[in-house]
Amino acid sequence: MKLQNYLALAISLFLFPSLANAQGMTSYQHNLMPVPTSVQFLDGRVVIDKSFRIAVSGHKDGRLEAAVDRFLKRLQGRTVMTFATGVASDLGTSTLVIQCSAPGSNVPSLNEDESYELKSSGTQVRLNAPTVVGAMRGLETVLQLLTSDSEAFYIPAVEIKDQPRFRWRGLLIDIARHYQPPEVLKRNLDAMAAVKLNVLHWHLTEDQGFRVESKKFPKLHQMGSDGQFYTQEQIKEIIDYARQRGIRVVPEFDIPGHATSWLVGHPELGSAPGPYTIERGAGIFEPALDPTREEVYKFLDTFLSEMASLFPDAYMHIGGDENEGKQWDRNPKIQAFMKEKGIKDNHALQAYFNLRLLKILEKNNKKMIGWDEILQPELPTNTVIHSWRGTKALADAARKGYDGILSNGYYIDLSFPAWQHYAMDPLPADSTLTEGEKKHVLGGEATMWAEWVTPETIDSRIWPRTAAIAERLWSPSSVTDVDDMYRRLSVVSVQLEELGLTHKRNADVLLRRLAVSSDVDALKVLISILEPVKEYRRYQQRPATMLSPLTGIVDAVTPDSTAARLFGKLVEGVISDSPRFQTNTAELSTTLTDWRNAEPLLSVLSERSPALSEVKPLAKDLGSFGELGLEALSYLSTGVTPPNGWREAKISVLDEASKPKSSAVEFAVLNSLRKLIFAAAEVQQSKKMSAVEWQKRIADLAAPPKK
Amino acid sequence: MKLQNYLALAISLFLFPSLANAQGMTSYQHNLMPVPTSVQFLDGRVVIDKSFRIAVSGHKDGRLEAAVDRFLKRLQGRTVMTFATGVASDLGTSTLVIQCSAPGSNVPSLNEDESYELKSSGTQVRLNAPTVVGAMRGLETVLQLLTSDSEAFYIPAVEIKDQPRFRWRGLLIDIARHYQPPEVLKRNLDAMAAVKLNVLHWHLTEDQGFRVESKKFPKLHQMGSDGQFYTQEQIKEIIDYARQRGIRVVPEFDIPGHATSWLVGHPELGSAPGPYTIERGAGIFEPALDPTREEVYKFLDTFLSEMASLFPDAYMHIGGDENEGKQWDRNPKIQAFMKEKGIKDNHALQAYFNLRLLKILEKNNKKMIGWDEILQPELPTNTVIHSWRGTKALADAARKGYDGILSNGYYIDLSFPAWQHYAMDPLPADSTLTEGEKKHVLGGEATMWAEWVTPETIDSRIWPRTAAIAERLWSPSSVTDVDDMYRRLSVVSVQLEELGLTHKRNADVLLRRLAVSSDVDALKVLISILEPVKEYRRYQQRPATMLSPLTGIVDAVTPDSTAARLFGKLVEGVISDSPRFQTNTAELSTTLTDWRNAEPLLSVLSERSPALSEVKPLAKDLGSFGELGLEALSYLSTGVTPPNGWREAKISVLDEASKPKSSAVEFAVLNSLRKLIFAAAEVQQSKKMSAVEWQKRIADLAAPPKK
Repeated sequence: MKLQNYLALAISLFLFPSLANAQGMTSYQHNLMPVPTSVQFLDGRVVIDKSFRIAVSGHKDGRLEAAVDRFLKRLQGRTVMTFATGVASDLGTSTLVIQCSAPGSNVPSLNEDESYELKSSGTQVRLNAPTVVGAMRGLETVLQLLTSDSEAFYIPAVEIKDQPRFRWRGLLIDIARHYQPPEVLKRNLDAMAAVKLNVLHWHLTEDQGFRVESKKFPKLHQMGSDGQFYTQEQIKEIIDYARQRGIRVVPEFDIPGHATSWLVGHPELGSAPGPYTIERGAGIFEPALDPTREEVYKFLDTFLSEMASLFPDAYMHIGGDENEGKQWDRNPKIQAFMKEKGIKDNHALQAYFNLRLLKILEKNNKKMIGWDEILQPELPTNTVIHSWRGTKALADAARKGYDGILSNGYYIDLSFPAWQHYAMDPLPADSTLTEGEKKHVLGGEATMWAEWVTPETIDSRIWPRTAAIAERLWSPSSVTDVDDMYRRLSVVSVQLEELGLTHKRNADVLLRRLAVSSDVDALKVLISILEPVKEYRRYQQRPATMLSPLTGIVDAVTPDSTAARLFGKLVEGVISDSPRFQTNTAELSTTLTDWRNAEPLLSVLSERSPALSEVKPLAKDLGSFGELGLEALSYLSTGVTPPNGWREAKISVLDEASKPKSSAVEFAVLNSLRKLIFAAAEVQQSKKMSAVEWQKRIADLAAPPKK
Repeated sequence: MKLQNYLALAISLFLFPSLANAQGMTSYQHNLMPVPTSVQFLDGRVVIDKSFRIAVSGHKDGRLEAAVDRFLKRLQGRTVMTFATGVASDLGTSTLVIQCSAPGSNVPSLNEDESYELKSSGTQVRLNAPTVVGAMRGLETVLQLLTSDSEAFYIPAVEIKDQPRFRWRGLLIDIARHYQPPEVLKRNLDAMAAVKLNVLHWHLTEDQGFRVESKKFPKLHQMGSDGQFYTQEQIKEIIDYARQRGIRVVPEFDIPGHATSWLVGHPELGSAPGPYTIERGAGIFEPALDPTREEVYKFLDTFLSEMASLFPDAYMHIGGDENEGKQWDRNPKIQAFMKEKGIKDNHALQAYFNLRLLKILEKNNKKMIGWDEILQPELPTNTVIHSWRGTKALADAARKGYDGILSNGYYIDLSFPAWQHYAMDPLPADSTLTEGEKKHVLGGEATMWAEWVTPETIDSRIWPRTAAIAERLWSPSSVTDVDDMYRRLSVVSVQLEELGLTHKRNADVLLRRLAVSSDVDALKVLISILEPVKEYRRYQQRPATMLSPLTGIVDAVTPDSTAARLFGKLVEGVISDSPRFQTNTAELSTTLTDWRNAEPLLSVLSERSPALSEVKPLAKDLGSFGELGLEALSYLSTGVTPPNGWREAKISVLDEASKPKSSAVEFAVLNSLRKLIFAAAEVQQSKKMSAVEWQKRIADLAAPPKK
């Protein structure tokens, strides 16, 4: 390994907080994520040394004590210091004093007061919170405030007043398409707590799996899960684990569509006779419950009542999405029923179904939540609309008096970069809702749909991007600086690892498995600028089933390439040096040389096995990028215009590289390379206009082709 | 990152099996570990493609089917191919046909027949085994045989007959000093099965923790474990998990010493009045059960009977080690009891205790096993002696008719390299035991004592070195080639990752936490040639308690540095080129340059926090090593003799670097550097003698100083 990449070190050093500007204290570069409602840094610091103790005044209970224990363990881990355990009795000499007023809800609720205030100065940090959950939120902030220099670990002097902007800040985890064992959920609950998310939306049933034990109808999980389900004991354990962290658990039982796995053991509930087998494909499937038969409601009454007592949350999600009604159309009895009842179409039939469900839920003191589709005229306004359609649908629902949460824009399974999710606000600045209507917008949820994730890869599809969504849902709407978000995100990402999250560590594991070797440096160079294809293109380019291995290059690659983002900054840096093009070139040159040098190594590697064959064309592209980039740099720095046809030839290399591949990955540096090529081709023009004009010209010329 | 370290790639390519010599088929370089009893490679290969199926003829049961499922998942993961699931019905068209004769023991037993035969040729692999466990052992061999070229994955044509040399091949995991959650045990059970180990020795109680739920005496786990214990349900689940993999679970309840945690809830069992608290220190402690009181035996009768029905294995380990009897000496009642009964000393008193225990165990149909100390004249020969003392003690016991297992030499917690463990044979070549006596030597156990491991680091302390011990216990005694062992070990180490083992992936996590950054390349260069100090020096150099964080540099560092071993080979390579010193220098120079270049980066890094301050002196050493190594290389390649005092100055740098540090790490390249320095100093001599003589001279001169 060579160590000449000083840039990376320089960048990472920059991540360390510092008083960037001694005059303005507010310019202190902190790593808080989500950014608090109000934060004011002051002169001074509270040193963290071996004498560190935590005291609690006011309310104290087992949940808070356990939170203090976890806090101490993490602080020990980071500082490599041993502190005394437990809660101290002496307020005066303790480093951190928690003043907690009340326990808050026994079961975390939508209206939990999560606010807290934090003041650090002198030798003490004081954390005041009205509830235990508020105190826990504040403890996470203290951990994010921890910093150090060569002398000491410390908490900077600061005054923080904080509370969430939205009450519902969730993460949906689909454990149906791919099962995730309890420890995966637990570590993700820890990560959620670290970024102040407060709802685990547990997507428990799907065409591809029924994953909750039912004692009333054991055939559901026994026949619908391949043996991969949660026992009720495990469910209670996870709910308690979440409760300990101030996180609600909202279960989803997705009906009437998405119901194949229900029908394997209970075909009598279906709208077609069956038999049914567990679905192995990806997509939208026909099997749906029969909404016209009383036995179905009797079954659902018994089952949902069982689930209602298992899950303490006030809400129950009934899905309701993507039922195309094809089985209904083909079933004469259902058609006859609709005619008889005057139900005009499938939407109305589903509305009828939902109203029946609503009664069951109401009987069990549960509020109903479902996807956009459930919003039908007859639906009472005490239902929550979960919008995959978008802020407009959410606003429309709010105007009608429905509470709603947003997931459109937060589909983390689609491999979009964090900044795109970050830009999506449940209440956009141009919202025309009244203040009263705005209250109906409860928040949002990131959605981890699980067609293509395993316990080995799921963390890297959730984190760190979900932390940006968590910030959007907690912080003031004015917090929108993308560069600063990414700077803080990179710190949070490392901190999440202490909770057991595998989003960073597992990529190497996949590469080593593919290479059957520990030497994967060249592969790491390659994948660092690759991303999985976006939206639903993976399935198109790389058809697979729920039983396929998820161990290919595309699974090692992660969304939102950091290396590509930094490469883009380097290219911008060089171009902005117009018309000299002398500074900022060294690092770019090093990177491009690494790409070029990786190609022959990767080509050899790609011969090792059929599993590595998809590396071959990627390696060729990588090498070409290195070559063309170095050529472009050379033209820029010498001011010599490239020969005729050079630009076209190089652009065609990029165009070729951008074509869909069966590896289902894409290079995340193509736009930056386009800029570099156009800049080289236009190097003469740079002398004829201002730097600003020239940069604009390059940006226009290099604008990516419309798709 | 630079990619000029072609050496590493060359080495890893070399790991890929190949028919090194087309004439001699036996020279096929396989990656089997443990090496089978008999293996003969032939011409040909059985291609693994999407049509891969497994059929089972003869006996088939749920355990075998589950093993087939796991096999298919791993094969899918490695090949990135989707196979049909389950067991196929057609023997003729299946790629792998398992012929299994019988289920074998329901509970895995010492006398389980673990043998199997494997033949692959044409289009089929045939695996014959007398028992399900034998078939599972064979399935692991098939996975290790899997290889590939650019065309295909395949199993080479081969004939294997295999059976273990020793019946007892164990891994002791101490989950008492540091608790390990069930998933840690499960992944380690998977790893054990992968290298054909067959006993999990579960060290469940210690001064520092009582970690098994007792329904008879709940104060034991409630007061003795900080809430970190296994419920009986979890214990059953882990025993079944092990059984599914043909692994016995032998529980250890270490008494009468090592018993502090028992006495927290039950001080009345102690030899001093108490009260007792859970021990937090490391070492040997005084608290011991009182062997003179009938209530103690009544208690043990009830407790051990409860445990006997929880743990189905035929053996129960009662520890019996390191009881120094200080509490006994000070207790007048115990002294009076000894006088009355004519018990002459504490050893005799412990023998009395053991005989009472034996009766309880016999009543429960359990055979007793305990550490060396339990071997006293009165002990019946149906007891198993577990020897931490060594092969001599084991042989002495065998001569007296006792079965025994060896752990001396297999203490993996002491950070020795794999080759040292590998050299330890329970039945050394010079054993004077008769064939009959040899049968008493049942095998051995690696011991993972857990003073300084957490769930985050434990895998890296067990693996991959324990695979070398597994080979010693399974393979013929003639399998002793250390270089070949290391070559195969590096492949096995990567393969273990697919089972969730974290031994490779977690070092980076620790470094990133320390650096609060993803950029840890320089730290990786540093730790690659560091090892934790050996034997019990860590505690001496870095005092800590069971509650201390294990997140320092020493925890990121792993035993048996691969980089240091390869560095040693490079140095040997250069020296062996005497008197030219021209070849083999490029790679060495690259490595030394990396060290030198890492120093300034590490120095900056070490200023970030007190937790990184221990990096500073290490960085200085690393830089010095790079400098002096490059100087030495320069003298060697030019043939110029270094100036007066150069050698002494450089050797003193090494001597300084070898001094104990509070970081409790040591450089694993000091001996290689000594050779390089002496070689440079003696470069003129190289022209005056044969290469062999000169190398011998350097080896003698550079021999490390006696400690």
